[in-house]
Amino acid sequence: MSAERHASAPAPVTVIGLGNMGTALAAAFLERGHPTTVWNRSPEKAKALGERGARVAATPEEAVGAADLVIACVLDHDALHGVLDPVADRLAGRTLVNVTSGSPEQAREFTKWADGHAVAYLDGAIMTTPPGVGSPDMMFLYSGSEAAFTAQRQTLEVLGDPLYVGADPGAASLYDAALLGLMWSTFTGWLHGTALVGADGVAATDFTALATRWLGGAVSGFLARYAAQVDDGRYPGDDATLDVQIVAIDHLIHAAADRGVDNALPELLKATMERAKAAGHGGDSYASVIEVLRGERRAGVPTAAH
Amino acid sequence: MSAERHASAPAPVTVIGLGNMGTALAAAFLERGHPTTVWNRSPEKAKALGERGARVAATPEEAVGAADLVIACVLDHDALHGVLDPVADRLAGRTLVNVTSGSPEQAREFTKWADGHAVAYLDGAIMTTPPGVGSPDMMFLYSGSEAAFTAQRQTLEVLGDPLYVGADPGAASLYDAALLGLMWSTFTGWLHGTALVGADGVAATDFTALATRWLGGAVSGFLARYAAQVDDGRYPGDDATLDVQIVAIDHLIHAAADRGVDNALPELLKATMERAKAAGHGGDSYASVIEVLRGERRAGVPTAAH
Repeated sequence: MSAERHASAPAPVTVIGLGNMGTALAAAFLERGHPTTVWNRSPEKAKALGERGARVAATPEEAVGAADLVIACVLDHDALHGVLDPVADRLAGRTLVNVTSGSPEQAREFTKWADGHAVAYLDGAIMTTPPGVGSPDMMFLYSGSEAAFTAQRQTLEVLGDPLYVGADPGAASLYDAALLGLMWSTFTGWLHGTALVGADGVAATDFTALATRWLGGAVSGFLARYAAQVDDGRYPGDDATLDVQIVAIDHLIHAAADRGVDNALPELLKATMERAKAAGHGGDSYASVIEVLRGERRAGVPTAAH
Repeated sequence: MSAERHASAPAPVTVIGLGNMGTALAAAFLERGHPTTVWNRSPEKAKALGERGARVAATPEEAVGAADLVIACVLDHDALHGVLDPVADRLAGRTLVNVTSGSPEQAREFTKWADGHAVAYLDGAIMTTPPGVGSPDMMFLYSGSEAAFTAQRQTLEVLGDPLYVGADPGAASLYDAALLGLMWSTFTGWLHGTALVGADGVAATDFTALATRWLGGAVSGFLARYAAQVDDGRYPGDDATLDVQIVAIDHLIHAAADRGVDNALPELLKATMERAKAAGHGGDSYASVIEVLRGERRAGVPTAAH
């Protein structure tokens, strides 16, 4: 892979939209020697990149025409249509990677637009903030045309670790929402714990060193085991039943209440566990809670798409 | 360390209380060649350990007298007093490690009992389920007498990775509650995401492979940064403000609502972020949410205890 990269000259790329994220994407390409063309509605945002060697296009048409790979990172779906609709003919035969935030439904709608204009389309989700762009540790999710992903993979590696999550163009956006939801839940649970131990004088950094080890070790181990249970539709509570966890969360709630820490989050978690218990899962593992989170439309076992 | 262990014969240990966890503790000591004495209120639970080489004590007094290190893992604080109060004199001069679940306040109360009977005391919290006992990856938290921890550390390594979290005997129990709260938050956020992507046919195991990488990578990176902000009492929103996250969580809520997934958790997370925004933190990082979780008693910057 590395030899292959050195054998071919870095491919030209175009980045449309130069907010903080678009600017970081263009900068990463410039840093790795890719001939990089940029365009932004307000041209002053392109200036610093121009000084670092980017070609600053005067129009979207010029930008789109400068490379086979066009990356769009604009405000929203409407802005995307506003910029690209007038230059659709120029985009024909090229690959569009759209990392504009949007819903799975918008990604599917835009795929139809791309198909109608003979544009190869990938929808992308960037799982880091701008300073993380360029790190091979960071996850960049792509969905849509697998052929386009395979063809552009080497160039996309400049930005981070490119992961193909499925032919459904909505998949990257859906994974993005799901992973951010996990992040906010984890953040808030961590802040609750930090407030709890902080009330007894423990520094956040001391607690967090253990918290990150806990997440990466035992908690991740449970997730892997529980994921297989979810796919099986069976939740054996071998070593940790919901009944036991419902008792244990009361210890947390009492300790936090004693220290004046807001308990809305653990109270909701307990209520959710109790709903699963009421549905007959008291002797099952925590994974059984998914049965009360799923909508009416999907009360059964999920079907794997790939 | 390894050489040191080989140089001295494994020390005798006593385990009192043979539920699933106590049995796993005793089994780990037996497996590593420690002369192990066990006692349980219902003697039939000791039988299998006896067959594996444990000395089965007929009374708590005999058990306590058999080793300098006594580990208690019983049902609760009352059971602990019930077993140990009558044999307090026999326990004098020995080390008691109490891994019975309880509150920080109970740990502090028991420390006074131990001090009154010349017993060296450590309160412990086991951050794994019984099958994880014996793995050096698993965290065993201890608080109380640092001298006792240092003296017993080598023996406690048989059970997992022993971590000393402070002289306050309540610290292990408080960390335990805080880490479990983080775990339940993470579990529930993960199940919400799993239900969300599952509605579009993604298998739980496929999503979870990315989810665990996300937790161990980018999310843990944020926690480390935010922990320093919490200790500083300043929350610069350099690359991800609460204002931006409040907009982003609406994408999650809409996508989940479209798929019939229960949104109680993300709705609560959004409401919590909005309370922090209302308190003036819209331009700050997510870490500022701790300001609305902390009780009235601690509206300011925490003081580090160690």
